[in-house]
Amino acid sequence: MIRTDLALEAKEMYHETAGSVTEIEGVRARTEDKEGLTITTVDILNEKGKKALGKEIGTYITIEMPKFKEYGHAFYTIGSLELKKQLLKLLKALNIPPNADILVVGLGNRSITPDALGAKVTDKLIITKHLHQLAPEAVQDLGSVSGISPGVMGITGIETAEIIKGLLSRIHPKAVIAIDSLASRSMERISTTIQLSDTGISPGSGIGNTRDTLNQESLGVPVIAIGVPMVVDAATLAFDAVTRMPASPFRADQETFDKIKSSLSANIGNLMVTPKDIDKILNQMVNIVSSGINIALHSISLDEIDSYIG
Amino acid sequence: MIRTDLALEAKEMYHETAGSVTEIEGVRARTEDKEGLTITTVDILNEKGKKALGKEIGTYITIEMPKFKEYGHAFYTIGSLELKKQLLKLLKALNIPPNADILVVGLGNRSITPDALGAKVTDKLIITKHLHQLAPEAVQDLGSVSGISPGVMGITGIETAEIIKGLLSRIHPKAVIAIDSLASRSMERISTTIQLSDTGISPGSGIGNTRDTLNQESLGVPVIAIGVPMVVDAATLAFDAVTRMPASPFRADQETFDKIKSSLSANIGNLMVTPKDIDKILNQMVNIVSSGINIALHSISLDEIDSYIG
Amino acid sequence: MIRTDLALEAKEMYHETAGSVTEIEGVRARTEDKEGLTITTVDILNEKGKKALGKEIGTYITIEMPKFKEYGHAFYTIGSLELKKQLLKLLKALNIPPNADILVVGLGNRSITPDALGAKVTDKLIITKHLHQLAPEAVQDLGSVSGISPGVMGITGIETAEIIKGLLSRIHPKAVIAIDSLASRSMERISTTIQLSDTGISPGSGIGNTRDTLNQESLGVPVIAIGVPMVVDAATLAFDAVTRMPASPFRADQETFDKIKSSLSANIGNLMVTPKDIDKILNQMVNIVSSGINIALHSISLDEIDSYIG
Amino acid sequence: MIRTDLALEAKEMYHETAGSVTEIEGVRARTEDKEGLTITTVDILNEKGKKALGKEIGTYITIEMPKFKEYGHAFYTIGSLELKKQLLKLLKALNIPPNADILVVGLGNRSITPDALGAKVTDKLIITKHLHQLAPEAVQDLGSVSGISPGVMGITGIETAEIIKGLLSRIHPKAVIAIDSLASRSMERISTTIQLSDTGISPGSGIGNTRDTLNQESLGVPVIAIGVPMVVDAATLAFDAVTRMPASPFRADQETFDKIKSSLSANIGNLMVTPKDIDKILNQMVNIVSSGINIALHSISLDEIDSYIG
Repeated sequence: MIRTDLALEAKEMYHETAGSVTEIEGVRARTEDKEGLTITTVDILNEKGKKALGKEIGTYITIEMPKFKEYGHAFYTIGSLELKKQLLKLLKALNIPPNADILVVGLGNRSITPDALGAKVTDKLIITKHLHQLAPEAVQDLGSVSGISPGVMGITGIETAEIIKGLLSRIHPKAVIAIDSLASRSMERISTTIQLSDTGISPGSGIGNTRDTLNQESLGVPVIAIGVPMVVDAATLAFDAVTRMPASPFRADQETFDKIKSSLSANIGNLMVTPKDIDKILNQMVNIVSSGINIALHSISLDEIDSYIG
Repeated sequence: MIRTDLALEAKEMYHETAGSVTEIEGVRARTEDKEGLTITTVDILNEKGKKALGKEIGTYITIEMPKFKEYGHAFYTIGSLELKKQLLKLLKALNIPPNADILVVGLGNRSITPDALGAKVTDKLIITKHLHQLAPEAVQDLGSVSGISPGVMGITGIETAEIIKGLLSRIHPKAVIAIDSLASRSMERISTTIQLSDTGISPGSGIGNTRDTLNQESLGVPVIAIGVPMVVDAATLAFDAVTRMPASPFRADQETFDKIKSSLSANIGNLMVTPKDIDKILNQMVNIVSSGINIALHSISLDEIDSYIG
Repeated sequence: MIRTDLALEAKEMYHETAGSVTEIEGVRARTEDKEGLTITTVDILNEKGKKALGKEIGTYITIEMPKFKEYGHAFYTIGSLELKKQLLKLLKALNIPPNADILVVGLGNRSITPDALGAKVTDKLIITKHLHQLAPEAVQDLGSVSGISPGVMGITGIETAEIIKGLLSRIHPKAVIAIDSLASRSMERISTTIQLSDTGISPGSGIGNTRDTLNQESLGVPVIAIGVPMVVDAATLAFDAVTRMPASPFRADQETFDKIKSSLSANIGNLMVTPKDIDKILNQMVNIVSSGINIALHSISLDEIDSYIG
Repeated sequence: MIRTDLALEAKEMYHETAGSVTEIEGVRARTEDKEGLTITTVDILNEKGKKALGKEIGTYITIEMPKFKEYGHAFYTIGSLELKKQLLKLLKALNIPPNADILVVGLGNRSITPDALGAKVTDKLIITKHLHQLAPEAVQDLGSVSGISPGVMGITGIETAEIIKGLLSRIHPKAVIAIDSLASRSMERISTTIQLSDTGISPGSGIGNTRDTLNQESLGVPVIAIGVPMVVDAATLAFDAVTRMPASPFRADQETFDKIKSSLSANIGNLMVTPKDIDKILNQMVNIVSSGINIALHSISLDEIDSYIG
């Protein structure tokens, strides 16, 4: 019904529906506040947890930067450094050293602003895989990173998962990092939140129809997903409007959801809600995510990034 | 409250609120159906009409192509030819011959997909003004067209109206045609509708805050606006959801609107609703609008356009 | 020494060096003039021909449009139709029906204007492969086309040939059409010439270092290459300048070539020569090539293309 | 004959032709070496100097970074800081405080890689002019900067100088900073050199035909030009090839230049020479120039830039 790509929100919605904050069997969560950030780690431990939250078994780390929009400039550094830290933690848990050969896949559609995150992050990565063969001395201190943004199925005519599976029959990275725009249920989380997980990702989670999943099972290597909520489904907005009005007679259930579709517009499923200043938000999040990845995988400082780009 | 940039919708909302379809004093409207298109002309005749609909005095022509999304390819030609016809009609009413010197201003932000219409249409125009001086024989059969997409105030730091006023102190076209994305109140009209008017336009109507108006009064030359609804305000969507549910206790009035803001999110005013396939819709509308303008101002056929571009 | 990607020029240079126009063993060539176009077909028949011209065995068709720059608009239609005709001829010779499943690969670097041809042509193709599965009725009259522009090795860190080989382990088109910018030896041929061949192509022929070849042998399916000369090597320009001056004491040989490098700049090999109006030329050639492919593979007319795009 | 936009090279060519390094009347020059940079200041003092070098009276500062291509990352910081220093020096000489209201004009054609410098630098500036009115507390520590990249005459149909003159009838900055790609005579200076001057600039110096000049006389405010050589004229390359060959009988004079045109190609004037990796070079120079301007006009550190962008 209500769609969210954030495990954090799936957990919140579970508690909302259940009317309680008791622990969910098969789910473990902990929260840490620091420097204006809130870091929440949700572990989905088994099938029970998976069923309860509707998310795959694995670890989901959410970095929330609630004051990001107001104090954008102060949070750039903080956000990048935190992303680096959490990414290295996930890699370490998978026994992958940060300088291992890694393929970054930028998902999404470069031509739709809120969906361009993956492609634009990939554009700003320091790509070195080929140089380790062709000019090893130039990159001896850097990791080995390759990157591809194949474009969505509507542009290529081919499932993104097929393109990546094919690529992995030719190159053999130790891990894939997949970047994508996400959908959240909450307007407040758009552009203030980054989710990392070790469970893989389905291209088109944020926008468009969900496609074949990229994960360890389908690709044969660990897949770390990094996503940023850039949109809310229009149906979610309408649902919230209808059910959250004071004294609303409409309950937050499937029946109400169905009525919205039939009374408002059957077309509502094809619409997304996005901030009017999505271009600035996109640039900021691209900077934070690409910088976080660059300093994690290449063991360099934030200051050094610009000098390697171009 | 509910915002629409379409005079057609302003009229519909007036009737809705009044609960009647009686004529509105100071407003004259007529509708014509043909080839799957509906052409509605709304004339706002005087201050009474202006007050009733909240739109400037003048003529608004709406070309609705309801089946456009289904039969995109069939409607490209029909839409372009109809836009040409209506544009020439407006120019004629202003006593401007189609081959007169004309400046096209592409409004909006190139970096936000639904707001990029103006800039992208300008990119595809056959620009000839300079050639009439430098290589007159090459363009002797074409009109004299110049074009500029100055970028929004957030990018330039300058009001768009200031940039255009300044430009018009140096060049002296017979008319300005301003292209922009619009906001409609109805999700169904996104991308199926083109509005032409002789009343000018406020940059940022579709997205962002309204800025200084471009019209005959401010610029000193006639301004024809061509707009395409690309977004709906998120607050409008929420309002429709709340008031249109069967058996809803919430009336379509200001009180409900205020409650939505306080109960849902004060932030809702900064959000827009747009189709998930906005990239395709944008390309299609850019093709139709740029082609319609090219064949109108240069007296060429649709087939000849591609050969002049590039 | 002197580099050209055109078999036509390789043949001309052979005759120049040999000081004769006698037939070259293992090479067959014929020329046809029509409607301002010159169509030259060079067949390299065997190892002797291959050695003589330094090109792979196979068929090379060159469409020359010498008046293209002057009469751009007149030649758009003529060029697209001729490209369609020659492409269908090559497909037929390979026993591939035009509506067979075909993968188009856009080679080159989107960020360098003269090298962007492949990516930009791919952007303008009517992509239908996925729709034949998802919405077959919408594309029942169209061919089955997929497309990918993976980006050059400097951007991805991966050999383009590896990406395509991988992809072909997952999808199984009847042929690959690879589009790329080429280098010619002659300034006059930039942007007035299209070469088709059935011999495959090495990414980066036009710009950058030559990489692993895409051809039937490496990919396992027939590869038709379509290329447009967009640059001349700077060393070629210098060589021509030095050897073609009236009363020049410098002969057109390797010794002179080496002297140029040592006396002028060792760096000259990293430079390319390109027209100052390369943006317009690129757009025109992208229009002609993409249109020619669209009407060949989808059996539609030029008029219908715009309605399918977007 | 040989074209260069660098005063430094004009001076070198004068000495070359004169066969001497004696001082030129009306010209004063001094050179400073530091940290791998060479800073040359050429003052053209009067009409005699102007005639000798073919450049306007004023100050030209050249920052040469010969090792830039090898040690790109090390020079990013050094180059940005030096540009800041020299820009502040020029502003100070004009009695303009760094936080004065300043308009930056990005010249050139965004669609041609070597000509995109001006537009891309403008994209990366921290634009604040409007915020000083709308949200003064958010920018109280920053300067007041506006920016526009109007596009070249071939795109707009209007002389760039006309657009800027018009704009300056509406806004009244204390100075204009104009950014453009330049042509140098030397292949080695492409992308390793930045020239600042207080003499204004003619749009299209680097590429295309020279247009009306932007300078204090034409605009009524001081114009500081910042340019980076991105191309060499093809005719210059051919001339160098012909005249610099060991034992060449061709003298470096007008006669030889004319022979090149007639024997090689009359078309050579429409060609430019540019590095094959122009995309990387462009990005690097855009980073250095935009960063240098941002830290000069906003009195911030290099580290703070990214946090303000987007």
